[in-house]
Amino acid sequence: MAVYTDVSAADLTAFLEAYDLGTLLSFKGIAEGVENSNFLLQTSRGAFILTLYEKRVDAEDLPFFIGLLGHLSAKGLNCPQPVRNRSGDVLGRLCGRPAAIVTFLDGIWIANPQARHCQALGEVLARLHLAGADFPMRRANALSVDGWKRLSAQAAPRAHEVAAGLAAEIETDLADLSARWPRDLPAGVIHADLFPDNVFFLGETLSGLIDFYFACTDAFAYDLSICLNAWCFSAAGAFDAAKSEALLAGYQSIRPLTLAERQALPVLAHGSALRFMLTRLVDWLNVPPGALVRPKDPREYLGKMRFHRTVEDSRIYGLPG
Amino acid sequence: MAVYTDVSAADLTAFLEAYDLGTLLSFKGIAEGVENSNFLLQTSRGAFILTLYEKRVDAEDLPFFIGLLGHLSAKGLNCPQPVRNRSGDVLGRLCGRPAAIVTFLDGIWIANPQARHCQALGEVLARLHLAGADFPMRRANALSVDGWKRLSAQAAPRAHEVAAGLAAEIETDLADLSARWPRDLPAGVIHADLFPDNVFFLGETLSGLIDFYFACTDAFAYDLSICLNAWCFSAAGAFDAAKSEALLAGYQSIRPLTLAERQALPVLAHGSALRFMLTRLVDWLNVPPGALVRPKDPREYLGKMRFHRTVEDSRIYGLPG
Repeated sequence: MAVYTDVSAADLTAFLEAYDLGTLLSFKGIAEGVENSNFLLQTSRGAFILTLYEKRVDAEDLPFFIGLLGHLSAKGLNCPQPVRNRSGDVLGRLCGRPAAIVTFLDGIWIANPQARHCQALGEVLARLHLAGADFPMRRANALSVDGWKRLSAQAAPRAHEVAAGLAAEIETDLADLSARWPRDLPAGVIHADLFPDNVFFLGETLSGLIDFYFACTDAFAYDLSICLNAWCFSAAGAFDAAKSEALLAGYQSIRPLTLAERQALPVLAHGSALRFMLTRLVDWLNVPPGALVRPKDPREYLGKMRFHRTVEDSRIYGLPG
Repeated sequence: MAVYTDVSAADLTAFLEAYDLGTLLSFKGIAEGVENSNFLLQTSRGAFILTLYEKRVDAEDLPFFIGLLGHLSAKGLNCPQPVRNRSGDVLGRLCGRPAAIVTFLDGIWIANPQARHCQALGEVLARLHLAGADFPMRRANALSVDGWKRLSAQAAPRAHEVAAGLAAEIETDLADLSARWPRDLPAGVIHADLFPDNVFFLGETLSGLIDFYFACTDAFAYDLSICLNAWCFSAAGAFDAAKSEALLAGYQSIRPLTLAERQALPVLAHGSALRFMLTRLVDWLNVPPGALVRPKDPREYLGKMRFHRTVEDSRIYGLPG
């Protein structure tokens, strides 16, 4: 949670002159998003989110992210919709940074999701995959196997500070996953970061998805495995078969998995657990002095890596046999 | 800027059941307030701010703060208005902390205020002093002379890290100010922290005041001297006579200063500069590891202390002679 850039009323008012958003009534920095600075704007036309893209986001990727939000909105998926300025642009510059305005999405994220929420998540994830099918842009997944190798090399010298023998454990997993990583599964646009705080509900209804800044082109079932790790374990770290079954049933009610996808689930879930363990590990070992963000504990995902390593049959996840 | 306490949707929904605020549509942690955790709530009844009081605020003071907001709102001053729950209470508990909901105030704070904003500030400050006259509760100013002595003792051993000889300079000022501090000026409720980020404007109109968590019972002219320091210096630290004159003219158009108040302005401004220098100094020297808040530089207020020390005649501030 952070606001990395201070935006003055004068800067913002000048920026908004290019938009047709009416009178500015208030703006507040919001404590969400670890990559960018986010502000909630209230104008006479409604509520909007202004994002300033900080250096961890590659400016060359912004047309993909912003274009994708426009594409998915047009397909009826409830996600933030980019707001064009009077010149028709969705990307501008504010305080020396790329900046965009998107519509504000009502809804509340659920810290402790239940099986029914996992079912709703599965459905919307499948709808997202279908809606993205004809999105013309591509973006490679920078956090797939090659990316994990870079993170692993970065973390190895101090990984033992987090768990004894961790560098060797990562190396073994990386060799195993590289050898077995599936390369020809059905693929397209994936969200790649669909944790509970990126999924809004109004009452029991899933009302929208946010934070598409890890979206990329990769295997659909890999996206599903990320959700399985993020939604289907207890706070204490125990796998929850009922939630996993609900997630997969929800997904398959919209887009049935192929045999190859079903068989690949254990290796995909093992890989996605490694991916989040590695980014958290690197962040954990590199907290800058004066940091505004508390890093997440990598050990949560170390436990998940170890769990999936033991799974030999996808039926463990609640897939019909 | 910070959110110190994570509040889950489930916790919040349970808390809101005691209120008549309709359906919860969204809530976001906002990056404002260094003492408390603040959330912006959108409900079917409108926008509200939920504050969780963290340990730096004394729970015994909350009835004063919340009572004052209610009193000033009833007098027509535009400030956050406490929302009562169905039992008529304005203070509850959420996530183990005292918590209150107040109305959301439209408006934007101005980082670089001009003389006309200072004039508007002076007017509203005088209105605040008049509106508080019949508020029945009292709260001593914990950050007056005795409080400065405590802060000075705390900071002295490491004050030289900020400026050579600073501990001795503070000690000299403290002795001087203690001897000359005026004790019988007109007094009542003061805001005591009316920096630009606590004053909202809509266009050129001052639209409201927020953040009353330093409010206390003290000399009105001391409050004015705090504004003089916070509003009437350039970013580079130079005193701006035009802004100061506008501030004082605005104030006196509503509540003329007495002769004693006018004569006391230099010592009051010197003291209020010392007060903010000291709290910033202590914060600066005591940034905890993993801190979520970047401390403000105490040297800004050291420069202001040195300026007021040289002022012998209040006409320097733009008071009519």
